Amino acid sequence: MTSTKTSAIPGGVLAADGFRGAATHCGIKAEQVPDLMLLVSDLPCSAAATLTRNRFRAAPTYVTEAHLRNAHAQAIVANSGNANCATGAQGMANARRMTEVAAEALNLRVEDVLVCSTGIIGVQLPILAVEQGIRHLATALSRDNPEFLARAIMTTDSFPKMHAVAFECAGYTVHVGGIAKGAGMIAPNMATMLGFVTTDLGVDAAVLADCLRWAVDRSFNCISVDGCMSTNDTVIALANGASGAPFLDRTDRAESEVFRTALLTVLEELAKMIAGDGEGATKLLTIRVVGARTFLEARRVAKTIATYDLLRAALYGEQFNWGRVVAALGSAQGAVDPRRVTVDLAGVRVWSHGEPQPFDARTAKTALAGKEVLIQVDMGLGQAAASAWTCDLTEKYVRENAGHEGPPDVQER
Amino acid sequence: MTSTKTSAIPGGVLAADGFRGAATHCGIKAEQVPDLMLLVSDLPCSAAATLTRNRFRAAPTYVTEAHLRNAHAQAIVANSGNANCATGAQGMANARRMTEVAAEALNLRVEDVLVCSTGIIGVQLPILAVEQGIRHLATALSRDNPEFLARAIMTTDSFPKMHAVAFECAGYTVHVGGIAKGAGMIAPNMATMLGFVTTDLGVDAAVLADCLRWAVDRSFNCISVDGCMSTNDTVIALANGASGAPFLDRTDRAESEVFRTALLTVLEELAKMIAGDGEGATKLLTIRVVGARTFLEARRVAKTIATYDLLRAALYGEQFNWGRVVAALGSAQGAVDPRRVTVDLAGVRVWSHGEPQPFDARTAKTALAGKEVLIQVDMGLGQAAASAWTCDLTEKYVRENAGHEGPPDVQER
Repeated sequence: MTSTKTSAIPGGVLAADGFRGAATHCGIKAEQVPDLMLLVSDLPCSAAATLTRNRFRAAPTYVTEAHLRNAHAQAIVANSGNANCATGAQGMANARRMTEVAAEALNLRVEDVLVCSTGIIGVQLPILAVEQGIRHLATALSRDNPEFLARAIMTTDSFPKMHAVAFECAGYTVHVGGIAKGAGMIAPNMATMLGFVTTDLGVDAAVLADCLRWAVDRSFNCISVDGCMSTNDTVIALANGASGAPFLDRTDRAESEVFRTALLTVLEELAKMIAGDGEGATKLLTIRVVGARTFLEARRVAKTIATYDLLRAALYGEQFNWGRVVAALGSAQGAVDPRRVTVDLAGVRVWSHGEPQPFDARTAKTALAGKEVLIQVDMGLGQAAASAWTCDLTEKYVRENAGHEGPPDVQER
Repeated sequence: MTSTKTSAIPGGVLAADGFRGAATHCGIKAEQVPDLMLLVSDLPCSAAATLTRNRFRAAPTYVTEAHLRNAHAQAIVANSGNANCATGAQGMANARRMTEVAAEALNLRVEDVLVCSTGIIGVQLPILAVEQGIRHLATALSRDNPEFLARAIMTTDSFPKMHAVAFECAGYTVHVGGIAKGAGMIAPNMATMLGFVTTDLGVDAAVLADCLRWAVDRSFNCISVDGCMSTNDTVIALANGASGAPFLDRTDRAESEVFRTALLTVLEELAKMIAGDGEGATKLLTIRVVGARTFLEARRVAKTIATYDLLRAALYGEQFNWGRVVAALGSAQGAVDPRRVTVDLAGVRVWSHGEPQPFDARTAKTALAGKEVLIQVDMGLGQAAASAWTCDLTEKYVRENAGHEGPPDVQER
């Protein structure tokens, strides 16, 4: 049981047994679109989270962190349209209030409810409308509409982001599924969005935290849209054991690896959806670094290239300006040695052995025409590899963030 | 002699006595604009430089570094339109050749000639045209047209950048003047452009290097356009002693301070010109951080805010979205404490004592209308301060770098 066979399945964050959810428009956003969701497990869950490292963290991240001290939870309440960030004491009270109302309506302890917000910064929540919405959602839970939950956390996203897989574990079928949001204020140094992932495997809370950290490091921590660290980013994992498969603890090394691989499959798909849906994006850019000495070295180089605006703009223009790839690569400093690295842009070798490589101009002209572009760098130093994902930089990103496009409350965040 | 009275004077990099220069169109660029310059001192100079830390450094940076090992120089040859970067062995030979031809034409030792290039990456120089241009320039040196030298190093710059000052030193009038270029590929972590500064003060080479490092740290190292570290960035200082003022060595602490303050005055002016002339810019943004414990802490926070694309785009749109200021501030992590910091956006207090501050909506609406925006942050921790400069992020930046605007050889860099 050293390799994991996972199959993609529908159901998103409700694919795992024993999870129900609901979403609604409670009135935070001006348009009639969902802006509040509730996700509940029928059974108590081991729970883990990764949170933004921004020092202007939003109120709900403090409440979620406090409620996770016991490493257990049973529900998540989340809203879009308002980040509840830079809102002072009133904002803290409102974030707590959201968990209190949900706990009361669901008959749970308040510390078993986690809370997330995303949207505009510095504006107080319409808390009465949110309370009313939560009470309504608690009566409307079902397994029917996972996409609606994904929609309820969208801000400038152009599509709901969900993915789920099934795999075999000790003869039982286990599910891992998730939803995520994020299109701007996506930076490379942390969990940079909202992501909720559920599983019906029973998992020891410490193992769950380890697996989540490992998988986030290789998925959400490898994407960037604009290098802007957010104030609200949160990834939460809930494991409820409803599958009946044996409980996973520290001693189950092989099964842990199977589980974390399945978890990574889901998070990586969600991360790529976020990168490809970056504000204004027309292309998904994948930067694959191989031949590094360590994973961290490979990831650092891949992410440095992914955040180089000049390259992102050139690829938007489908300019085969490979000089910007090596300039970006060199800006990673450290172990980058021009005499050892090999660089391929969209399958065309442009640099190796310390010299530029000749290539066919016609091939180069069409190489960047697709919706996806792969940049591959071989560091020539070792065996480690990592990928980073981003999108091209377009006028539309600027227009959206300058407020020149879209209604005001779509610019939230 | 603890405060320096400097007066702005014309003359740019030729303001100091004993320096001459010339510029021409040698044929690197397609348009008939200057693309090659030669700057020569009549006397041997102490010389110092700061160079890019990019690992894909251009060939001329290696040659300049080697020629500076003796800390003396007498001439700089520089071209725009071609970066001579990622050009392999041929590029190294061409960079050396530029210094050899200049040395021969000027009757100098080859190691007394420094070389810089800026422009497109990965393309070989038309070296015969460059050689011919250098030979011509050596016969055309004068003190008449400092602006022409500034123009010869421009790429996407919209105007030539030059500044000079005069000050008194031990009864003598001393001059410090410089030119610079840079509009894109401007990152916050180093000397990120070309800058040449001359003085007719005689300065010990080690003192000159110290003063240059100190002044670059507070000027060019405080600007950012796009966070993209370049491959060619070089700042060179030449001190020839032609003023007759006493030679400045390690023992002259007061005079060193006077000189480095004058140097900073020139470099800061040039740095602000670069930030305000960022590709596509409509506004110069100044981020002033006070109340930090150390200069480095203050600068790190200021530069983090200066590179936050979401904020730069919002300010382009003149959106009073102060939430993006605190999100950017918080992403600097470290010592940022929301309970201690005070934030003013364009003179409007938006955050203090851990709470958002009420402000007049009409004031906020017009506060961002000018060509300059000041963001002031008081960390509430100590006495140190620093500033960073950047520009707003506009569609024009994206269009230029996607190749959707301007002729192809204006996109060089």
